[in-house]
Amino acid sequence: MDVETLRERLAQYGQEHLLQFWETLTPEEQKELFRDIDELNLEEVTRYYGNAGMNKNNEQQEKLDDRLQPIPTDIHGAVVRTDSDRLKLYEKEGLKQISHGKVAVLLLAGGQGTRLGVSYPKGMYDVGLPSRKTLYQLQAERIRRLENLAESTTGHLGHIPWYIMTSEHTKEPTLEFFESHGYFGLKKQNLVVFEQGMLPAFTFDGRIILEKKNKVSKAPDGNGGLYRALREKKILDDLEKRGIEYVHVYCVDNILVKMADPVFIGYCVTKGADCGAKVVEKAFPTEAVGVVCKVDGHYQVVEYSEITLKTAQKRNQDGRLTFSAGSICNHFFSMEFLRRVAGGPENELKHHIAEKKIPCVNGEGQLVKPDRPNGIKLEKFVFDVFQFSERFVVWEVLREDEFSPLKNADGAEKDTPTTTRHALYSLHQRYILAAGGRFIDDAGKLIPLIPSMLNNNAIELETNNNEVQKSCMSYKAPVVVEISPLVSYAGEGLEDYVQNKDFQPPVTLLAPGDKVPNAGNPNLSMPLQVHVVHSSDNNSFN
Amino acid sequence: MDVETLRERLAQYGQEHLLQFWETLTPEEQKELFRDIDELNLEEVTRYYGNAGMNKNNEQQEKLDDRLQPIPTDIHGAVVRTDSDRLKLYEKEGLKQISHGKVAVLLLAGGQGTRLGVSYPKGMYDVGLPSRKTLYQLQAERIRRLENLAESTTGHLGHIPWYIMTSEHTKEPTLEFFESHGYFGLKKQNLVVFEQGMLPAFTFDGRIILEKKNKVSKAPDGNGGLYRALREKKILDDLEKRGIEYVHVYCVDNILVKMADPVFIGYCVTKGADCGAKVVEKAFPTEAVGVVCKVDGHYQVVEYSEITLKTAQKRNQDGRLTFSAGSICNHFFSMEFLRRVAGGPENELKHHIAEKKIPCVNGEGQLVKPDRPNGIKLEKFVFDVFQFSERFVVWEVLREDEFSPLKNADGAEKDTPTTTRHALYSLHQRYILAAGGRFIDDAGKLIPLIPSMLNNNAIELETNNNEVQKSCMSYKAPVVVEISPLVSYAGEGLEDYVQNKDFQPPVTLLAPGDKVPNAGNPNLSMPLQVHVVHSSDNNSFN
Repeated sequence: MDVETLRERLAQYGQEHLLQFWETLTPEEQKELFRDIDELNLEEVTRYYGNAGMNKNNEQQEKLDDRLQPIPTDIHGAVVRTDSDRLKLYEKEGLKQISHGKVAVLLLAGGQGTRLGVSYPKGMYDVGLPSRKTLYQLQAERIRRLENLAESTTGHLGHIPWYIMTSEHTKEPTLEFFESHGYFGLKKQNLVVFEQGMLPAFTFDGRIILEKKNKVSKAPDGNGGLYRALREKKILDDLEKRGIEYVHVYCVDNILVKMADPVFIGYCVTKGADCGAKVVEKAFPTEAVGVVCKVDGHYQVVEYSEITLKTAQKRNQDGRLTFSAGSICNHFFSMEFLRRVAGGPENELKHHIAEKKIPCVNGEGQLVKPDRPNGIKLEKFVFDVFQFSERFVVWEVLREDEFSPLKNADGAEKDTPTTTRHALYSLHQRYILAAGGRFIDDAGKLIPLIPSMLNNNAIELETNNNEVQKSCMSYKAPVVVEISPLVSYAGEGLEDYVQNKDFQPPVTLLAPGDKVPNAGNPNLSMPLQVHVVHSSDNNSFN
Repeated sequence: MDVETLRERLAQYGQEHLLQFWETLTPEEQKELFRDIDELNLEEVTRYYGNAGMNKNNEQQEKLDDRLQPIPTDIHGAVVRTDSDRLKLYEKEGLKQISHGKVAVLLLAGGQGTRLGVSYPKGMYDVGLPSRKTLYQLQAERIRRLENLAESTTGHLGHIPWYIMTSEHTKEPTLEFFESHGYFGLKKQNLVVFEQGMLPAFTFDGRIILEKKNKVSKAPDGNGGLYRALREKKILDDLEKRGIEYVHVYCVDNILVKMADPVFIGYCVTKGADCGAKVVEKAFPTEAVGVVCKVDGHYQVVEYSEITLKTAQKRNQDGRLTFSAGSICNHFFSMEFLRRVAGGPENELKHHIAEKKIPCVNGEGQLVKPDRPNGIKLEKFVFDVFQFSERFVVWEVLREDEFSPLKNADGAEKDTPTTTRHALYSLHQRYILAAGGRFIDDAGKLIPLIPSMLNNNAIELETNNNEVQKSCMSYKAPVVVEISPLVSYAGEGLEDYVQNKDFQPPVTLLAPGDKVPNAGNPNLSMPLQVHVVHSSDNNSFN
């Protein structure tokens, strides 16, 4: 433990204050601090700080309006503007690539569920479906079903390896969770959990912040830390060893996520894309969503705060928003692209600056919790690499079919366990209706998909009668319908089982052998009305 | 009190059971029941029941799909597809009509705030704006501002009489509320409060229901009871006496409602319409909103439950929903149309049937609260008359600018006091931004209109630090900005006051003499940061 050499190196980068409490520390604490500092690549992290450009710290005020162009229509495909024959061709192409083992999925899961109010990784969250399956289980089962579908369509069995990027805090719990659940039926060797990097927090004048007298304040380097981790953790090599050619990258919190979506994969492959973004149409000008567009001829995701209200409100002749391609953190990359980008250009990208209230120690070594931002964290975003694409495409999907993120605890205005659960119920209800099934109430009457205006109006007329009110209100929540991913990946294969049949909710469709956390636990609130579907091998994938 | 004659009349219509408890009633109770029954027009109400068609009670299962056509594009105008010069022409026409006293507004306010959890009329509800103004006050002040705008644009002062249709339960509280608040600055003679009719509830086999042994179960006849009330309460005569030619009809619960919207009025007048509907684009196929369309060549509002999922999901080549004109209960009628329709054809329309759990007395005279529907109520809808229009038009506006209804108490998923308040803040924030104002936080930094992704991402990285989390979360709610309707009706006239100025929220812009319920009440939670705007006569109406 050569503290003098360390002090010199720190001085070289203007960080000698990190040792200011050295003499007051116990030998054990000294060891901890020494290790903490020694782990830092001082040359690198101070360069990151310098490049991030604190001097021209006006990111949010420097508007991009004049440099902005929308996505050209020829590379902006959309489910709703594509005829069904072509959609089937895309899907077939995607299933072919999957069946030949050329597609991997990669999950960005470095965040914890802080806003949700839990201290474990978000993927372990159970939103309260009748089955009580977690997000991780739903995703694992979608992979299994899709592998089967691809096999029954093409005759080949290909595996979809699943890469999960975690952070210091989420890696161990994630590994333990999968192990204790038998990898939800996946082969253990097809699950690869790796860790993203951490970076120290800085004061506004570039000094690394101490969280305790013997501990540096660090945070993960953003979801764009992916590229560095791909390189340094040898994930690129692992992908290549398996013969992967296309990687589908997504975030953990979208309950409706279609992992390795064969239509999206097929669209990108057919278009010869090296990089693609799945988007939803922005609902209104000030919606809190980043927009995929062109800036100075290069593709990127622009935040609302980078453009003026006027540009956000700009519309085409047909009335649609000019900048409408809302990013949902759902991307396609070719291996060639990842290899090219992670190997060099990405490393030169500047980090983004997030001003934060960062707990730190003051000159007396006491903990201070600042009440306004006192420093910055450095982050990259996964979409920062779009600018390096030579053949970029956008694929627009319907929000109600594919996007419902879990961000906040119940009680928030949106993106809660309740809203994600309802989004899944609504989608699965539509799957069953589209396959010819019906829903009836306990009096044998057809349940409408949405409450009728008659019911709505009537509520207000019936005062002093809480019971009637309660009954009408119950129609406001969607019918409870959950279809196991092992039964259907995207609504396919349900006809044989549901056509011309009446279902009385709650309805849970399971496959034989489906592992249901709720089974046998009488204390869980939701009654299970389970229908085991024996036709899950049906290959009519619509 | 000739009970024998009454019994004979009842028997004639199969309703003699209404007197089944006669002998057990006290003289006072007998008097009440006699009056209650005597008020019923038995011939009429039993005919309504018969026409409503209980025998073919499959309204919700009889799909209209094959008979449906979308609105022809030539009568489907839209703010976002109209150039600004034309919008100005429409607005000028509307202001001209207003300044010549030819426009009235008519509020449908028969409902109570039951779902909101209050027992008084919804218009008296205070959603918690900094000013604590109620919906009624906001609406009254919009009328006043619009009269001034029309006058300063045209040189004529015309009044916009305000008609409010109440029901048995809401008439008295509404009248008292306006009186106790000095009619919010309106002339008393320009406020006309009238009452809609009531209809008895029926069992499924057509017997009128007794709520008590001496009381018939009655409810208002739906918002389509308007036409009957216009005729029977002589409101048509009052409108004509005042020289009104156009009536703007709306519901009480939309906090953003543009009463007598000059653009909408001008569009309808320019198109020579006798009847027009303001709509918003339906957001997704299963959204709980009625859709304006053509059925067998006649215009009407169709509920989701009347069409199949497939038709609801139908899209045009450009990807838009084919049936997208979402009704927001915001209509234009010419006097000629109202006179023609209320005078005859409307009276022949069948009532809609709403199956209900209706509290009633059993054979022993005991109160029963049924746990499933035991009877029906008869209702008409205000838009039922669209079918009689000879020159119908649709005007599509932006939801975020014009529609945010208050339906449920806080805690519900949507349409709550919080969502309406936030919708108003967001709109008023955009008014100020568009007029060149800026918002800064307490550190002097510009506040973005929506939170940046940097902030969003960062939250998840900062675990074990609730304070930071809380601070970031606070950005999720919109900036608090309230502009008095007396200052600006729709964003006009703000430049002189806000251009190049910085505002630190909460911001409340008031006109001189603005009556603010919150003023002087230190117990109300929201601090008022009031800016009195002395330029409220500015006539540059954009």
